[in-house]
Amino acid sequence: MSKKLTKRAEDYSKWYNELIIKADLAENSAVRGCMVIKPYGFAIWENMQKELDRMFKETGHVNAYFPLFVPKSLFEAEEKNAEGFAKECAVVTHYRLQNDPDNQGKLRVDPEAKLEEELIVRPTSEAIIWNTYKGWIQSHRDLPLLINQWANVVRWEMRTRLFLRTAEFLWQEGHTAHTTEAEAIEESKQMQEVYAEFAEKFMAMPVIKGAKSESERFAGALETYTIEALMQDGKALQAGTSHFLGQNFAKAFDVKYTSKEGKQEYVWATSWGVSTRLIGGLIMTHSDDFGLVLPPRLAPIQVAIVPIYKGEEQLNMISEKVDVLVKELHAKGVSVKFDHRDTLRPGAKFAEYELKGVPVRVAVGNRDLENNTVEVARRDTLEKQTVSQDGLSDYILELLEEIQTNLFERSVAYRDDHITEVDSFEEFKEVIENKGGFVSAHWDGTIETEDKIKELTKATIRCIPNDAKQEEGKCVLTGSKSGKRVLFAKAY
Amino acid sequence: MSKKLTKRAEDYSKWYNELIIKADLAENSAVRGCMVIKPYGFAIWENMQKELDRMFKETGHVNAYFPLFVPKSLFEAEEKNAEGFAKECAVVTHYRLQNDPDNQGKLRVDPEAKLEEELIVRPTSEAIIWNTYKGWIQSHRDLPLLINQWANVVRWEMRTRLFLRTAEFLWQEGHTAHTTEAEAIEESKQMQEVYAEFAEKFMAMPVIKGAKSESERFAGALETYTIEALMQDGKALQAGTSHFLGQNFAKAFDVKYTSKEGKQEYVWATSWGVSTRLIGGLIMTHSDDFGLVLPPRLAPIQVAIVPIYKGEEQLNMISEKVDVLVKELHAKGVSVKFDHRDTLRPGAKFAEYELKGVPVRVAVGNRDLENNTVEVARRDTLEKQTVSQDGLSDYILELLEEIQTNLFERSVAYRDDHITEVDSFEEFKEVIENKGGFVSAHWDGTIETEDKIKELTKATIRCIPNDAKQEEGKCVLTGSKSGKRVLFAKAY
Repeated sequence: MSKKLTKRAEDYSKWYNELIIKADLAENSAVRGCMVIKPYGFAIWENMQKELDRMFKETGHVNAYFPLFVPKSLFEAEEKNAEGFAKECAVVTHYRLQNDPDNQGKLRVDPEAKLEEELIVRPTSEAIIWNTYKGWIQSHRDLPLLINQWANVVRWEMRTRLFLRTAEFLWQEGHTAHTTEAEAIEESKQMQEVYAEFAEKFMAMPVIKGAKSESERFAGALETYTIEALMQDGKALQAGTSHFLGQNFAKAFDVKYTSKEGKQEYVWATSWGVSTRLIGGLIMTHSDDFGLVLPPRLAPIQVAIVPIYKGEEQLNMISEKVDVLVKELHAKGVSVKFDHRDTLRPGAKFAEYELKGVPVRVAVGNRDLENNTVEVARRDTLEKQTVSQDGLSDYILELLEEIQTNLFERSVAYRDDHITEVDSFEEFKEVIENKGGFVSAHWDGTIETEDKIKELTKATIRCIPNDAKQEEGKCVLTGSKSGKRVLFAKAY
Repeated sequence: MSKKLTKRAEDYSKWYNELIIKADLAENSAVRGCMVIKPYGFAIWENMQKELDRMFKETGHVNAYFPLFVPKSLFEAEEKNAEGFAKECAVVTHYRLQNDPDNQGKLRVDPEAKLEEELIVRPTSEAIIWNTYKGWIQSHRDLPLLINQWANVVRWEMRTRLFLRTAEFLWQEGHTAHTTEAEAIEESKQMQEVYAEFAEKFMAMPVIKGAKSESERFAGALETYTIEALMQDGKALQAGTSHFLGQNFAKAFDVKYTSKEGKQEYVWATSWGVSTRLIGGLIMTHSDDFGLVLPPRLAPIQVAIVPIYKGEEQLNMISEKVDVLVKELHAKGVSVKFDHRDTLRPGAKFAEYELKGVPVRVAVGNRDLENNTVEVARRDTLEKQTVSQDGLSDYILELLEEIQTNLFERSVAYRDDHITEVDSFEEFKEVIENKGGFVSAHWDGTIETEDKIKELTKATIRCIPNDAKQEEGKCVLTGSKSGKRVLFAKAY
């Protein structure tokens, strides 16, 4: 494989795939549509998990684990949900292999080991979880039930892309049960806020919070709250969703509680999830033609230190200085790598850290020892500076914060520049086709119009923004009356 | 379900199952042999994961993620491994459901969505991982490769028991590749040490380190190093294994590297794993007729504080004192729960924390306010003491350490008391049948003898201890020559 990365302007999709491979994030596996998440990519996911898990716990949730398999009869209990996922289910039908008498030394599925009932590999866990909740919920005292699960799920997608759409992916799925409709709605909105905060504060990825139109809702939900981000190629990415499920699952699985007044009532439900897809969003928000750009708060290595030396004696003198810096940075919670491999030249190391998006790179050479300096390079702007060794760890700490802020502000500026209000369908098509980004337009509220617009432009309603203001207008396609603008975009 | 727990002496197996249900650790699910790990049980697993993950990283390992599915042709590439797991594989044969025309509203597997090649749900990941490593390893510079994965695996076991043997379970599996045989053996022994340290230091569960006899080895391994613990009913539990795989997988998947001398060589492999089975071991090492007993270092709640009060005014006065204590304990890294629920009486709360194995319970009543005291109860000995509020957080911190130590020492004493040296088969049978525990005996080294002993006594060779000393003797069954004693036991 060539060392050189395709430029984004040339072929964004090719750039994306190459970057993932070259930066050692992930690769396709021998299983159609399933990826291998390599150690460097997985370390980003671990950092995401750590922060999200903390945020879930701070909002009162606990983790649990439910089975990978869902018996078919449970799977189909909530009809809309079953219908929504039926076409992409991996199905286990047998539980044993045997030697194949027609093919020496090979194994085949043992036809006698057929399961009485097929098992679906979970595409999402509402069915198995609500069937379990039935046994856990009797009284209003058992509520709310606020549970999250970190798990793998499988959706047999026909067209897959690393991180964005894979047959198996890693995610978390929250499943909560409440006594009242209002409390369940509040919970689903709260988790939308948690996701938005995570995206902006840690991923430095600005998002728009809104509700999905009916046709884009999660199968079985009454309302889907979403966070929508904008990628560098002008396409939107649904980055996380939180669903108000009403009483659909409670009714399908007969989950009732005894209220304070002694009445039997169905409980109210939510579910919410984000997945390894976020890593795709992270890549397409910040990275450039030189490789990955990682926000410091999620970078597995925040600072890489490269010695520039001739001979062991110089290396020893540099190491002495660097060891002190490494200790100071560690004590401040910074993740540092002192790269003194003797198998690579400094230039090759610089290229590697650039490709891998390490936020800050420090180079220390012989002249630096004389001058009490180091060279500090930041990945976001590619700027280099000569900096004094005095107070260096504090300087780096501040620089990391500055990079985090800069990445966010840069993305906000790009995103804000790519929300275009339009009032005619000509304009709509022109913006979607040439500029990209979100188009803010009036819509008559019908599925027919939404479908027609999608057919004509490939753009879909990404969300009805939470902060959309009341504004009289006319549907951009049909001219019918509309009370607020919604956001359209082409999307991943 | 009755509140009362079956006594261990009455029916150990019933006690175990009831305890798991009553202490809210786990339950059986709607899927045959698969369990639901409830929040309290999962919190123990999270604590285990946290410590193990830290230990793995400190020994140079990184995490990654590989596919859930293994194509059949890859699965069978390493024959011994395939043979070992073939009879317990869940197999995915189809990828879609459709409406069933013969059964309105129901779904059925779409016969047209048959996979060209069946997918095995991983029972262990050597095959898919070594197929991936082929692409990652070219040069000696790519080695060692030290990777761990946290994952779910599926083994279609016919007789299952919560935590100990379930069709799906959670585990970690390390998979490493090395240039030399010696380095791979060293790695597998190192991980045995890591497991032993974790078991003893965190689970307070003493283990014996040893090697498995040939017939008890992992399928495809040249050597299996194990840690073996002893449960309260005298049965052994294999708590973790680390395998030296030789070049079996490298040859099966053609994984070679170019040595420093420019030669093509097959790499050397190890794999190692522990699972949610450890929670079963934890339960059966420490718990008693009153419920779970958790070592402080893994307890989700280390200290529970229960106020004893009449009326809101008293509660407020108690809360004022308790809030200070809670803050101090938090600052010292102690996990505390102040249980001021007004729906339960203090006695019911005491019973709950006893059942759930919370190491320290603090009760604060009106008289304690007057006397500047609290009542402290420790779960391990069930002792209660009146303690001054001055310096209370330090007192509790020390008490937690003391409990951790006491649990370990108690278990060591029990275990040491249950290793019996025998020199005749009569004695062997008598000890296995009546006393239980490990029997240390001479064995002639043959599989035939091992099988015969198992047939006659149900005891198997748990391990050949690492520290077994050379000692001339005669096989307990056949009288043939033997150079050291091995440990037999009935096992889970």
